[in-house]
Amino acid sequence: MTALPEFRPSDPGFEARVRDSFNRQPAMHLIGARLSLVAPGHCEIELPRRAEITQQHGLIHGGVVGMIADSAAGYAAYSLFPADSTVMTVEYKLNLMAPAAGDRLVARSRVTRHGRTLTICSLDVFSWVDGAETHCATGLATMICLHGRADTPR
Amino acid sequence: MTALPEFRPSDPGFEARVRDSFNRQPAMHLIGARLSLVAPGHCEIELPRRAEITQQHGLIHGGVVGMIADSAAGYAAYSLFPADSTVMTVEYKLNLMAPAAGDRLVARSRVTRHGRTLTICSLDVFSWVDGAETHCATGLATMICLHGRADTPR
Amino acid sequence: MTALPEFRPSDPGFEARVRDSFNRQPAMHLIGARLSLVAPGHCEIELPRRAEITQQHGLIHGGVVGMIADSAAGYAAYSLFPADSTVMTVEYKLNLMAPAAGDRLVARSRVTRHGRTLTICSLDVFSWVDGAETHCATGLATMICLHGRADTPR
Amino acid sequence: MTALPEFRPSDPGFEARVRDSFNRQPAMHLIGARLSLVAPGHCEIELPRRAEITQQHGLIHGGVVGMIADSAAGYAAYSLFPADSTVMTVEYKLNLMAPAAGDRLVARSRVTRHGRTLTICSLDVFSWVDGAETHCATGLATMICLHGRADTPR
Repeated sequence: MTALPEFRPSDPGFEARVRDSFNRQPAMHLIGARLSLVAPGHCEIELPRRAEITQQHGLIHGGVVGMIADSAAGYAAYSLFPADSTVMTVEYKLNLMAPAAGDRLVARSRVTRHGRTLTICSLDVFSWVDGAETHCATGLATMICLHGRADTPR
Repeated sequence: MTALPEFRPSDPGFEARVRDSFNRQPAMHLIGARLSLVAPGHCEIELPRRAEITQQHGLIHGGVVGMIADSAAGYAAYSLFPADSTVMTVEYKLNLMAPAAGDRLVARSRVTRHGRTLTICSLDVFSWVDGAETHCATGLATMICLHGRADTPR
Repeated sequence: MTALPEFRPSDPGFEARVRDSFNRQPAMHLIGARLSLVAPGHCEIELPRRAEITQQHGLIHGGVVGMIADSAAGYAAYSLFPADSTVMTVEYKLNLMAPAAGDRLVARSRVTRHGRTLTICSLDVFSWVDGAETHCATGLATMICLHGRADTPR
Repeated sequence: MTALPEFRPSDPGFEARVRDSFNRQPAMHLIGARLSLVAPGHCEIELPRRAEITQQHGLIHGGVVGMIADSAAGYAAYSLFPADSTVMTVEYKLNLMAPAAGDRLVARSRVTRHGRTLTICSLDVFSWVDGAETHCATGLATMICLHGRADTPR
């Protein structure tokens, strides 16, 4: 509908910084999520279907869809943050539009607006069924940049 | 601020139905969540802190907070649904207000408005630190009642 | 990021039906909004800046931004609904990313997923300042189709 | 469900400051809204029904419901802010649960969490029909405090 903004990261080491942070998230390991793409203001997380992450209908749990969407948004934002900072989620909102029914999910997030304090990201989750992509969730997230704080436990 | 609505469940067996459905959610087992309270239009889910469900700061992952909030809302709604139905999440929105820093979380959801098709629920998540409760997240969810459909895989 | 869905309206008279409904919204006249584009699953509403619709900083009120965003989403959805139906907003969420500072606003909404009961729409509001477009708000809305009900007062 | 937080305003002149700011919002005058209550972390706005603020079904427009909800949240937050500051809406989300069908609406907002930068507010809108209150909308808003900036046009 409109041209996507192009972002220039302030930290040239953004990709290694994002990947390192993702790898220190035990919750992403627990569900089997993988960071499949990091670019300035953009992040994708893949999640293969496993029985352990389903709900009572045998579909991937809506909360798990939210987990990868929230993480993708956090890292889309964090890719633009300065090296000496960390990221926290202020809020997110997700519409679950179609069953998360496939063999794997891909959560894609893009920064819509990058500010010094707050960064807004769009979220989209796609389900792969028989080689075709279904747009199964869409959402928005607001991330905050904590300047001068390490991305590790306090 | 205003009196909470009191609900009369249409299905007297609502509690067993909700507990049975919760028990068939592998994702709740995976993170270690427990259904601690079911009442008409009300549900609470407890989650002890474990390293496996944390993020890079050592706090419980915001997406995991969303998982128990979404499930609590789904079951608060489902407690009011007829026996011959199932529940799906249309959308949810969560504000993460304080770090999920304690030994355990409690997600509480209450039905705000119960309709034939759509049911709206409030969500609140509390973190227990040193015996004191911190209100760490608040949100809203919209649930849909699928009449005449079983609460099992199709 | 991904190809937008293309929609085929079930009612060939969708544009006249949408324009007629918009014209029967006194609240849109009150703020001076104009329906600038209707296409299948797509709607744009323009709003020139006037002092009457501002807030205490002299910017267009955030709630007025929400009004045109909500209406644009309602009519993007309604363009795909059958002739014998009406539309109601279930919920909407809006991030106000930049001041609504220009001479006019344009709210654009597109249907992301069209279902028989629920239709999900994306919302974007742009502000025109000195001939340049600023993306000042982004959001999501859930609309419900009330089949067999007239789009007029009961 | 849980005790509401009690707030101590940092500015003893908070009520006059909030009322003055509200009175400088032309958009609130345009729709006929009135600031009916200001207390620390709490605000109520009343809106009598007039034909000019309705939509095509003769109900108060959902976007107008959002306008008074957004303003109530902004002023609930602003009541707790320091004298030398202003408030902006980061985002809001509203579920329209029942038609805004009565003679007047009352939007009530309470601060759920007050932080130095971000303040989270709950929103509820009630419609008065034949002397009885209907809970017609519920929502959440995130407000930002701009320290050291005047609450007037720049």
